[in-house]
Amino acid sequence: MKNSITEAISDFFFEYETPRQVLVRNRRVGVVCRLIQLGVLVYIIGWVFIYEKGYQTEDTAIGSVFTKMKGVAYTNISGEQKVWDVSDYVYPDQGAESFVVMTNFIITVGQTQSTCPELPDGKNTCHSDEDCKKGEFKRTGNGEMTGKCVNTTNTCEIMSWCPVEDDRQIPDPPLLLAAENYTLFIKNSITFPEFNVVRSNLVEGVDQNYIKTCMFHPEKDPLCPIFKLGDIAQYSGFNFTQIAQGGGAIGILIDWECNLDLRIQKCIPKYRFHGLYGSSSEGASVGYNFRKAKYYVEDKVEKRTLMKVFGLRIDIIVHGLARKFDIIPTLTAIGSGVGIFGVATVVCDLVLLYLLPKRDFYKNMKFKYTTVQDEVPKEQPEKVDERKE
Amino acid sequence: MKNSITEAISDFFFEYETPRQVLVRNRRVGVVCRLIQLGVLVYIIGWVFIYEKGYQTEDTAIGSVFTKMKGVAYTNISGEQKVWDVSDYVYPDQGAESFVVMTNFIITVGQTQSTCPELPDGKNTCHSDEDCKKGEFKRTGNGEMTGKCVNTTNTCEIMSWCPVEDDRQIPDPPLLLAAENYTLFIKNSITFPEFNVVRSNLVEGVDQNYIKTCMFHPEKDPLCPIFKLGDIAQYSGFNFTQIAQGGGAIGILIDWECNLDLRIQKCIPKYRFHGLYGSSSEGASVGYNFRKAKYYVEDKVEKRTLMKVFGLRIDIIVHGLARKFDIIPTLTAIGSGVGIFGVATVVCDLVLLYLLPKRDFYKNMKFKYTTVQDEVPKEQPEKVDERKE
Amino acid sequence: MKNSITEAISDFFFEYETPRQVLVRNRRVGVVCRLIQLGVLVYIIGWVFIYEKGYQTEDTAIGSVFTKMKGVAYTNISGEQKVWDVSDYVYPDQGAESFVVMTNFIITVGQTQSTCPELPDGKNTCHSDEDCKKGEFKRTGNGEMTGKCVNTTNTCEIMSWCPVEDDRQIPDPPLLLAAENYTLFIKNSITFPEFNVVRSNLVEGVDQNYIKTCMFHPEKDPLCPIFKLGDIAQYSGFNFTQIAQGGGAIGILIDWECNLDLRIQKCIPKYRFHGLYGSSSEGASVGYNFRKAKYYVEDKVEKRTLMKVFGLRIDIIVHGLARKFDIIPTLTAIGSGVGIFGVATVVCDLVLLYLLPKRDFYKNMKFKYTTVQDEVPKEQPEKVDERKE
Repeated sequence: MKNSITEAISDFFFEYETPRQVLVRNRRVGVVCRLIQLGVLVYIIGWVFIYEKGYQTEDTAIGSVFTKMKGVAYTNISGEQKVWDVSDYVYPDQGAESFVVMTNFIITVGQTQSTCPELPDGKNTCHSDEDCKKGEFKRTGNGEMTGKCVNTTNTCEIMSWCPVEDDRQIPDPPLLLAAENYTLFIKNSITFPEFNVVRSNLVEGVDQNYIKTCMFHPEKDPLCPIFKLGDIAQYSGFNFTQIAQGGGAIGILIDWECNLDLRIQKCIPKYRFHGLYGSSSEGASVGYNFRKAKYYVEDKVEKRTLMKVFGLRIDIIVHGLARKFDIIPTLTAIGSGVGIFGVATVVCDLVLLYLLPKRDFYKNMKFKYTTVQDEVPKEQPEKVDERKE
Repeated sequence: MKNSITEAISDFFFEYETPRQVLVRNRRVGVVCRLIQLGVLVYIIGWVFIYEKGYQTEDTAIGSVFTKMKGVAYTNISGEQKVWDVSDYVYPDQGAESFVVMTNFIITVGQTQSTCPELPDGKNTCHSDEDCKKGEFKRTGNGEMTGKCVNTTNTCEIMSWCPVEDDRQIPDPPLLLAAENYTLFIKNSITFPEFNVVRSNLVEGVDQNYIKTCMFHPEKDPLCPIFKLGDIAQYSGFNFTQIAQGGGAIGILIDWECNLDLRIQKCIPKYRFHGLYGSSSEGASVGYNFRKAKYYVEDKVEKRTLMKVFGLRIDIIVHGLARKFDIIPTLTAIGSGVGIFGVATVVCDLVLLYLLPKRDFYKNMKFKYTTVQDEVPKEQPEKVDERKE
Repeated sequence: MKNSITEAISDFFFEYETPRQVLVRNRRVGVVCRLIQLGVLVYIIGWVFIYEKGYQTEDTAIGSVFTKMKGVAYTNISGEQKVWDVSDYVYPDQGAESFVVMTNFIITVGQTQSTCPELPDGKNTCHSDEDCKKGEFKRTGNGEMTGKCVNTTNTCEIMSWCPVEDDRQIPDPPLLLAAENYTLFIKNSITFPEFNVVRSNLVEGVDQNYIKTCMFHPEKDPLCPIFKLGDIAQYSGFNFTQIAQGGGAIGILIDWECNLDLRIQKCIPKYRFHGLYGSSSEGASVGYNFRKAKYYVEDKVEKRTLMKVFGLRIDIIVHGLARKFDIIPTLTAIGSGVGIFGVATVVCDLVLLYLLPKRDFYKNMKFKYTTVQDEVPKEQPEKVDERKE
């Protein structure tokens, strides 16, 4: 027939389908279903929205950290007095987010390139020159063997930085125990690129005057950016004297959990401390140390002062997570919520059609049977119903 | 009855339920509902898919950065001429992603371990030896007090690296103002582990010859990986002379936003600059400086040259986000979209059943009432209708 | 009527709507729909749940890395023998996660601040003093020009650290080729803050004794945290000798993919290696090198030993992703799954109502027409049906 398209379109726009429904008046079913639906509703609103904040998008922070140590230590090694200040005991100097504070050391002054016997630490014992193959290296050795076995020490003679460092004895108590009183100042600024928010750990209220006097404490001063090294070790579950001797690593986690739907002032950092290694619990490799050489020239000869540095390695880790309302996750949550509502209905129908005594009756109400196929519908009463219509 | 299972199964496979619907021919309802549904459709397709790219999965990048400075500065301090090259003014040397360019400094040559009076900066004033407790440290002090109060300076005598650094005056104008013309070359390579894509900031077209001549400019040369230090400071909103004097920190954000459904050539970095600290706006702790000691031995005595370094700390931060089509989020989006469609229907039904004048009629069409319970259905006409069926 | 509210409420609670459905007994439609629905079911269960683990939440790791090199090299440069140990060839010293192992170098001993001719490398040629403007810098130059053109070299005389480094010839073969046998020990500890799980790469079975003897191998010892430098280069697709000469950068990716629903012991690291730069494939900037100065004072004059260091820069990148069951994503997945089920029904209806020969009959079964509007329903048979009801 003509202009059927226009008709179809007008139909499409002026018609509206809505599913036909059976209204079952049944206490049990009714209550059961309302409860199920209620549960779903509570879940969607209560959990997804209020608890998990499903209506917000997340963004992780980009952070930058600057650190500064303060404090002086004093040593008196075999009569030689020495004062250690920041540039002597912090590696590297420039206030990076990962640095080492020296708490103990083994110093070998005036090493030169020459030949000397290996350290008699048991690993390098030799009985005759045969044990020291000329020009070879031992994995446990410190240099190239000259092929001679030194009688005095029963170790191979090597070509190396001599004298060889003797690290069999780690000074105990640690030489720089005063490190316990050093203070660490942390400056941290973060950016949430998506929300384009910038924050610093010097939040409102943490101003010049406050910083001058404050010292971090989990309860009393949770926002003070100045930390006592001894406290840091303790908060991380270490015994300072113990870790100071053999060294260890500590992670300071600056945790930003910001809900940007609230006032920005509520976006403040939380400082967490956990020991990374140094605990004796971890069998494999305990402690933290490295070697640092200071080179100099004396009488035209290049020399170096080698230090085996034991210390606290501090990694400052920034973990920022901001959340803000966004329409997409909201609608997605609603959408899947409605989907789950569907589940509720399905469950109810199962109850209605398979558990209730009057199930046949309800089946009959709910379903209308088409009998165009060859096979005969199996349940008579329904067929009758069908015809009656 | 026998073989009822097989029957049930065959039924299950050959039957198909589809909800019965009322087709309401009503201009108002029809138009309203079509509009609502249209809105949902537009939202799902337009926003979720086209705008928010809800059909893609994300992956964040793993990046590695290598930097290299170029440039020479010249100073003339009290007649002593000196040239500063890269290894003199960059800390650390090895081209890390976070480094410091020295722009100003206070140098204290030839410090030795000995005793000398504290710096008379007001914090360490003493009037008599009582004010200087032997063997103690002042938090503001530079060493261990010997117990003597020096008359000439009215400060405690300390044991420390002497002479004590005098940082009361920061050189102004900065000594290495020439740093403004230094150039920074950034090499950045990123990996998207999930999509297993590797890119470098030396993208197509940024080749040997281009790099030789180019200089970064936001509009003209947005891809040139060579930056003038002065420009960096300016792009970050700093006045170079000012920040060069007291130091500061700048973040260079290399932003990769890649849609991997397009050509890989379109996956190019954007360079952003923001000042981290150094701006006077931030009250608490302004500027950036650290101390660096160069050790040497002279006449068998260990000495050091202490430098208080003021400079630009540059943190290069890589933030990569790649998106690629994936079936899961697509179907999830569709799924919740259909869910939202359900919402549309619900709204329409409310209109139909509670707002329209003929609502009773439609109720009647839509619902079929079961009357198996004791209570009598309340609305007569419907009951009649019901019987009529 | 009175107390209608209570009635409404009781109705709400004791009533339950379930959609009326047509049960179509039709082999084709039935099978088609069951298949479609089956597909959706398989997709939801199989893909979203089993394959993509849609029922889990993710958390990315926070990692801390500590590295330690071992090994000694021996050089004999023009008769001068020298042994190089860790503190000589690793930059920086303190075992950071990004460090450089020197494999080749150009050394310039005893530079002082004075004047000397530029390096005759072609870039700085001059013919007369006019070519050397006094007090100016050349971008390609090493210092400030004094205004003199030196005849012997045909280059400008400059004020700089003299003598100027001559890096026209890069030693080949690399001087520290022995670096191939150095070993790298990596200690990595990660934290999943959300799940509050801490793991170390020294997992179960990787204990003191194992570490003493083992050497990493992708198949044989995939968990051994000790790596041979030569192997690392090779796994990254480099030829060691080649990269050792000009330098290069390698990324070691420690990949943690943990399913925390399983035993924690199954949460183990995977080590991946990829070359970052140094490959000649990348045209723009090949190799990796930086300059390192050692300062010292000789006869009251400050001198420095400048080294142009070529080496392997190793970036250790930790990428941790943990997944754990969570109710929210589970229900979201189910919800959208149900939504997709809706899609299946829609498709089936289209088949039923537009493709089947008996479509009119089914339309008639499915839809009930309201005839309250002016326009007359177009299809006779249905209208009749309608009346018949």
